[in-house]
Amino acid sequence: MKTYFDCIPCFIRQVLDSVRITTTREEIHEKVLREALCLASEMDLQQSPPVMAQKIHRLIRQITSVKDPYREVKGRFNDVALKLYPKMRQTIINSDDPLNTAVRLAIAGNIIDFGVNSSLQETYLEETIHQCLSEKFDDMQLEPFRNAANNAENILYIADNAGEIVFDRLLIEQLPIEKIIVVVKGFPVINDATMEDAILAGLPKIVEVIDNGSDAPGTILESCCGYFQDRFEKADLIISKGQGNYETLSDINKNIFFILKAKCSVIARDIGCKVGEMIFQKSKAFNGEREDARV
Amino acid sequence: MKTYFDCIPCFIRQVLDSVRITTTREEIHEKVLREALCLASEMDLQQSPPVMAQKIHRLIRQITSVKDPYREVKGRFNDVALKLYPKMRQTIINSDDPLNTAVRLAIAGNIIDFGVNSSLQETYLEETIHQCLSEKFDDMQLEPFRNAANNAENILYIADNAGEIVFDRLLIEQLPIEKIIVVVKGFPVINDATMEDAILAGLPKIVEVIDNGSDAPGTILESCCGYFQDRFEKADLIISKGQGNYETLSDINKNIFFILKAKCSVIARDIGCKVGEMIFQKSKAFNGEREDARV
Repeated sequence: MKTYFDCIPCFIRQVLDSVRITTTREEIHEKVLREALCLASEMDLQQSPPVMAQKIHRLIRQITSVKDPYREVKGRFNDVALKLYPKMRQTIINSDDPLNTAVRLAIAGNIIDFGVNSSLQETYLEETIHQCLSEKFDDMQLEPFRNAANNAENILYIADNAGEIVFDRLLIEQLPIEKIIVVVKGFPVINDATMEDAILAGLPKIVEVIDNGSDAPGTILESCCGYFQDRFEKADLIISKGQGNYETLSDINKNIFFILKAKCSVIARDIGCKVGEMIFQKSKAFNGEREDARV
Repeated sequence: MKTYFDCIPCFIRQVLDSVRITTTREEIHEKVLREALCLASEMDLQQSPPVMAQKIHRLIRQITSVKDPYREVKGRFNDVALKLYPKMRQTIINSDDPLNTAVRLAIAGNIIDFGVNSSLQETYLEETIHQCLSEKFDDMQLEPFRNAANNAENILYIADNAGEIVFDRLLIEQLPIEKIIVVVKGFPVINDATMEDAILAGLPKIVEVIDNGSDAPGTILESCCGYFQDRFEKADLIISKGQGNYETLSDINKNIFFILKAKCSVIARDIGCKVGEMIFQKSKAFNGEREDARV
């Protein structure tokens, strides 16, 4: 997905949110803000939004010397999600269609996105879980997905955020686990999950977990390490979680299923849905179904 | 009021709203957006937000060669307000305290602000009228205001937006009209009222109307013509309508009553109220009640 004009004011708002989480020093807020405005004035709009976000968060880290400003908030949401995990697992096991329920919960977990909403409260997470379990959503792709997962040889599960990764574990447990590699970010950026979060979620005990070597809040293939690129190339089924991964992978010609909550109007417009909708969608760029697909 | 960091993403959003109203050509949207980001990266945050807005809207006019992009929308809201005028006037006349009711309606009219909300619909205006007529609001200043209006020799009524100016007429009619000069903008900027709108509202038939010679969406004294500055200096009571006038006059040591709806979080924080609140407030900068007052 390209960067829409409407992403720009949102970037600037994100810059402020992030730098305020990093430091209370107003002169640093101002310095970062001014430099981000300069960066934004020269950005390549043909690139996806995470390309710009990657630059902005590098800038914040460079100016503030804080490597992982969201560390505390990531820890907090990992804890909250881990507390909810046993009950959610039971809900899945007791449900008529465990895979459907696990997908719904994986979507619910995607509300933990500090790029979109830096003031998310834990209580809202529980509300979102209830809503995602009861709301109607377009599950037309569920049977093709079930078949694809059974028939695939190599499944890549590209995770999104800390906390959310516990919800991902619930879905992973419903899939043929021996074929799955889970991917996290190589370095901290916003509240995206890194290896530390995967370990807290208990994932390496049940599945192979790798990092993508990148500090982008999405999957910019050129920015990822060779090992990840190789696994990406070999995968015959890719599960992509969240907005950042959708934004960076929606034009790639691979067999990708996108799982996310459409939390902003730009994503909603690109997908063709309403803001807030639960999305479980097969890539339109796979096998040329989308004209502007990149191979 | 100085420019807060949170005003910056809002400026960039405003730029997009404005340029989209002006032209459908996306290459122009991009050019304006990039230049506005450059401007914003160098702005003086000690100045009030309308200083930046003035520069941005000059930029849009210069790049697009469209002098008055909001002309159609201003006409539409003048028409809507004029249709509502007889009924609102009757509501005032029939009320227990006509001045109180007229102030409430003047605040309701302030919802017609395309700087804050470029997608305002006419139906929302009627909702706002009902809400402002029934809602509790802090009218502690009403008696001091009534006395000040009776005792003043020269009253300046600084209008805000087109459409809204019809609501201002309702309040002006409840005041000692022979002492009042109404002020509109010297040139079109966003949907701010100019002489054309004052004439449509029928104001010059009942009161003296002048323009301030400026193209700022507020009252930047240095940017106004000498004639206005002289009237401002001589006025012993000033009525200031809307956010832009509050932002530019809140630090000035003059006997000003601000009438507005607090429509954004930055204004609400500066005033110390909630977003959406009806504001009828005497200047805290008058006679040094606010420490950072400018003379």
